[in-house]
Amino acid sequence: MKVLWVVAHPERRSLTGTLWEEGTRALEEEGHEVRVSDLYGMNWKAVVDEGDFAEEAGSGRRLFVGRAQERAFRGGGLSDDVRAEQEKVRWADVVVFHFPMWWFGPPAILKGWFDRVLTQGFAFGVADDDGGVRRYGDGGLAGKRAWVVTSVGARASGFGARGVHGEMEEVLFPLLHGTFWYTGMEALPPFVVYGADRCDARGYARTVGELRRRVRELAGMSPLAYRPERGGEYDDALVLRDDLAPGRCGVGVHRRDSR
Amino acid sequence: MKVLWVVAHPERRSLTGTLWEEGTRALEEEGHEVRVSDLYGMNWKAVVDEGDFAEEAGSGRRLFVGRAQERAFRGGGLSDDVRAEQEKVRWADVVVFHFPMWWFGPPAILKGWFDRVLTQGFAFGVADDDGGVRRYGDGGLAGKRAWVVTSVGARASGFGARGVHGEMEEVLFPLLHGTFWYTGMEALPPFVVYGADRCDARGYARTVGELRRRVRELAGMSPLAYRPERGGEYDDALVLRDDLAPGRCGVGVHRRDSR
Repeated sequence: MKVLWVVAHPERRSLTGTLWEEGTRALEEEGHEVRVSDLYGMNWKAVVDEGDFAEEAGSGRRLFVGRAQERAFRGGGLSDDVRAEQEKVRWADVVVFHFPMWWFGPPAILKGWFDRVLTQGFAFGVADDDGGVRRYGDGGLAGKRAWVVTSVGARASGFGARGVHGEMEEVLFPLLHGTFWYTGMEALPPFVVYGADRCDARGYARTVGELRRRVRELAGMSPLAYRPERGGEYDDALVLRDDLAPGRCGVGVHRRDSR
Repeated sequence: MKVLWVVAHPERRSLTGTLWEEGTRALEEEGHEVRVSDLYGMNWKAVVDEGDFAEEAGSGRRLFVGRAQERAFRGGGLSDDVRAEQEKVRWADVVVFHFPMWWFGPPAILKGWFDRVLTQGFAFGVADDDGGVRRYGDGGLAGKRAWVVTSVGARASGFGARGVHGEMEEVLFPLLHGTFWYTGMEALPPFVVYGADRCDARGYARTVGELRRRVRELAGMSPLAYRPERGGEYDDALVLRDDLAPGRCGVGVHRRDSR
């Protein structure tokens, strides 16, 4: 497989730095091809602004971000850094997003990667031959898979089904479902390191071992069973049919195997 | 009341620009004091890096972001831009976060405001006299309230209780519960503009009218009924007691009035 490893941490000598090194090495040992986007190392620009689509912006027209991104994408006018990342995504079978969880989501530098790279026309806002919108299980990145590797200071129990921080996969719903699945990428079950703030040498070794084991299983790993938008489970108002997860509400209903 | 309005949009001539202008004007008409952080206008730095705590970083020690932020916070060593924002937050009774929803969350420039401003020691990681952690309903920002004003291209039905995009308040859980409530701020019910991509002149006028009405009600608005961490609803493992929302799972259980 071709794997793009996108990593966001300001300190190379961190648990994230170690896991990134060991994870990519394990992939190569399995015979996979690996490319890396080290966002801090690249001094990645986090913020969508007129520099991303200079020609569009120079028109003086009122700026609609999605449309400007799409016009620039189609006309080859996106900035070099964005085009380079899009090329890596095109190349990849699996994209790994590796980050410490800050405020229950990715650090701004990685959020900015999604904002800037997954442009309209490339990752979403694409239609099929009959004009239908390809989204949720389909889209510009269909056929690829995406994997979150993250770490949190808190204990695992707090992220359980009834833990105070919220169930981990539901906390990550904007990423797993709203970003990966939305663009057509299957979301693999996240690899989460809990108690990362209190990780000693033995904890490091155990965590590295677990990551390596998961990496070896990556090719055959089953994705989360999110429901496709088109396929009859949602009605024309994009609401889940009454007979599926009957009587239940909330983001959990969008998994076929939800409780 | 003292209201800090934090806004993140690259185009002043946007729906967001109009709502920001009208919303802050309505606040002033009601006699409230208003300060604004226009993140794009300020050219706000989104990314946590060594510039935020230069003295800490200069030590050559391995960087632990939370600890470095806290040491710099306590020693007055945070960068000027971060200290200025913390002072505004200290001043405010209500903080408004106003943004277009990108990938089901705030744009990177605003995510970076949370990452950089809500430092350990200031907003979280604070203890009371008996050493207990003040968090979820308590914390460095206790007594304040926070309000999301946002816009999405999609229709409202897709963000309903069983809509394909996920229930809006659950999609915003990392912000409403994991950021506001975590630091002690009560989360007010978000003001969401749906169908923002297709908003014509009449839609603009109607939306402005609705925002102005909500702003007039702001002082008396009831917050979302999230459960406090300490108060007996969670056990020592931070798991919700069996007899509360019995048999149910997912982020919805953390609201007292959840279905």
